[in-house]
Amino acid sequence: MANRSFINVKLATMTGTGLGVVTNQAMTTDDKKITWIGPESEMPPGNYIEIDGKGNWVLPGFIDCHTHLVYAGNRADEFEARLEGKSYKQIAEEGGGILSTVKATREASESKLSISASIRLILMRRDSGVSTIDIKSGYGLDFENEAKILRAAADVGEEEGVRVRRGYLAAHTCPPEFKSNPDAYIDQIINEDLPRIVEEGLVDYVDAFCENVGFTPEQTRRLFLAAKHLGMPIRLHADQLSDLGGAGLVAEMGGLSADHVEYTSPASVARMREHGTVAVLLPTAFYYLQETQKPPIAEFRRQGVPMAVATDHNPGTSPFTSLRLAMNMACVLFGLTPTEALRGVTINAAKAMGLQKEIGTLEVGKAADFTLWDVEHPRDIVLELAEMGQHRTFIGEKENSP
Amino acid sequence: MANRSFINVKLATMTGTGLGVVTNQAMTTDDKKITWIGPESEMPPGNYIEIDGKGNWVLPGFIDCHTHLVYAGNRADEFEARLEGKSYKQIAEEGGGILSTVKATREASESKLSISASIRLILMRRDSGVSTIDIKSGYGLDFENEAKILRAAADVGEEEGVRVRRGYLAAHTCPPEFKSNPDAYIDQIINEDLPRIVEEGLVDYVDAFCENVGFTPEQTRRLFLAAKHLGMPIRLHADQLSDLGGAGLVAEMGGLSADHVEYTSPASVARMREHGTVAVLLPTAFYYLQETQKPPIAEFRRQGVPMAVATDHNPGTSPFTSLRLAMNMACVLFGLTPTEALRGVTINAAKAMGLQKEIGTLEVGKAADFTLWDVEHPRDIVLELAEMGQHRTFIGEKENSP
Repeated sequence: MANRSFINVKLATMTGTGLGVVTNQAMTTDDKKITWIGPESEMPPGNYIEIDGKGNWVLPGFIDCHTHLVYAGNRADEFEARLEGKSYKQIAEEGGGILSTVKATREASESKLSISASIRLILMRRDSGVSTIDIKSGYGLDFENEAKILRAAADVGEEEGVRVRRGYLAAHTCPPEFKSNPDAYIDQIINEDLPRIVEEGLVDYVDAFCENVGFTPEQTRRLFLAAKHLGMPIRLHADQLSDLGGAGLVAEMGGLSADHVEYTSPASVARMREHGTVAVLLPTAFYYLQETQKPPIAEFRRQGVPMAVATDHNPGTSPFTSLRLAMNMACVLFGLTPTEALRGVTINAAKAMGLQKEIGTLEVGKAADFTLWDVEHPRDIVLELAEMGQHRTFIGEKENSP
Repeated sequence: MANRSFINVKLATMTGTGLGVVTNQAMTTDDKKITWIGPESEMPPGNYIEIDGKGNWVLPGFIDCHTHLVYAGNRADEFEARLEGKSYKQIAEEGGGILSTVKATREASESKLSISASIRLILMRRDSGVSTIDIKSGYGLDFENEAKILRAAADVGEEEGVRVRRGYLAAHTCPPEFKSNPDAYIDQIINEDLPRIVEEGLVDYVDAFCENVGFTPEQTRRLFLAAKHLGMPIRLHADQLSDLGGAGLVAEMGGLSADHVEYTSPASVARMREHGTVAVLLPTAFYYLQETQKPPIAEFRRQGVPMAVATDHNPGTSPFTSLRLAMNMACVLFGLTPTEALRGVTINAAKAMGLQKEIGTLEVGKAADFTLWDVEHPRDIVLELAEMGQHRTFIGEKENSP
């Protein structure tokens, strides 16, 4: 058991409603948790490994609460084709879109999937000191392949020393085998695959893509009832391209988060507020698709719905590994303040994953996950991507620096 | 004198009008230049250090042809204030904007300026294998401080092994000393500062900011006449926020490039074509300012005006060090194809700097500046920012890898 003390640091605890800035304080940890925060002169006696923070800022380890990190192949060729004037329809007819990633992922071995996801996770850590990450399945679309992705997701987290939570997203799109019958696919998930996935302990929550090009609210509701019956938390890709009321639906069913939420109505926002459902903003996907409808930020603020920010990393619509870029775009494109963006990758991202009791703030009893940032002010992490942002990340007992 | 041979590589030479793809060929270099390209079996005999490219792509070293890399301070506080609802006017009245960077830069020592610029250049190299960079003055606004910036720019390039070309941008904004009299400031530049800067060999070309918030076309023309009289090439920040005809003006005077060019008219595009003036696109600044008027890409294409892409790195409107992000935004925001974006940081960027005989393509006799990219296809460099993009960069005799 190694106890550490961090002296000469400035803390942005992310408690309360802002950055929770605390200066002239020190912090101690054991292998797993923050054990004390207070003036250095009052530090409890103990056999500490002392770490001099050299005046750096300490923030809770960043949390990327929405990614599709495990997949094979790349879709740059499609994007190039679009830029060269080919229509979405043509591309889909030629086998492009999510199904092209499904094809490549089904063909890939579990270890190949683990390697490519590890490389992406290393980039994420280097860029933003990510200490917790959400990874969804959804490129397998049958039991074996979804399970393969979820096992790879766990291995990658373990190998890289990053906390991983896994979402079962079989309802991402309809697989070729069920092309003409999405209801039968939902039945297959509900009756066969989901119970097995849960029983084998492969998953932390259930997700779906509720959209005109995905699944209907009714199909989503059926799936979520089954998930809840099995004691699984739920989250939803909602209202990205149109308002099907998805955010309201997942909120009403007690879901942790509604993600994307560009088209979410004030009525759905009210339900999110009522049920404590987090709005997960995914600005890099908005950017990459050159969407024009922005999420109702003013309404989220007015009603007090917590906003999280994530990369939505995936090969088709957000091939980025920089959570700092996602935060920057949340500010530039959606008008978040840097403080809101930083809360969006700490305490609010923790809430979106149901982990707010364990991570997301610097508080005694929470996990000893945090990053030392060599910046003048925390806003620089979001706005000054030019800075080296040299940082040291601690996740529990490990130091995990770029 | 070390001769090297590169085998097992795919070349994107950037000759002709596309990527200039050449496969199944090898390349040899001496300390400075590319000496041969052809089938490996026909490689001229010689005592080569052999480098196995492992099937990687070789592209000419990337060129960031428009940056303001040397400055002190940061303006994240201003951007945060804007996001929190403060107006530009309020910020300017409180001492913000370019002049706040001028104040910080004047107060900074030459070595402090060199250090911070070096860190940024290291990030640029790591991200995109940048081998040539443009650095402009313009945060000094008097002889001593402009000279200080230009000396630091040269030192940074030498220290980091990156080719630097320097632009004299005293006409960036009017300094406080001349606040009410920009014409007198232009006179000061023309009569005193510019001849000394040229005589001391501190500069490769002369630049200006022609805009409602900068200098008038008439002031710009006067300055450029003086520059040409001294044998200096010219470039111009033109038509960023309004159409003052700047791109047409600099073209008519034989300028190398017009930069920004969001508001450039078809008539100005015709002049650029006539005089071989390059359009330098700066999409990250467009993004950061959330501008809506896009440069006339279709018109540049129709008239055959070469387009370059650069970071415009600066603390106020483009605090980014990723040329790959700039290329990505050129595609996503302006609709360039990945091939156009790649030409924009190679041959067309070379043209914007007047260096097209030395760099920008892989051809015998050109500088041995190139990067080995571990990607499936060159478009991945632009579109798949998630890839490790592990690369090795060679600049003349040095290997300069991340």
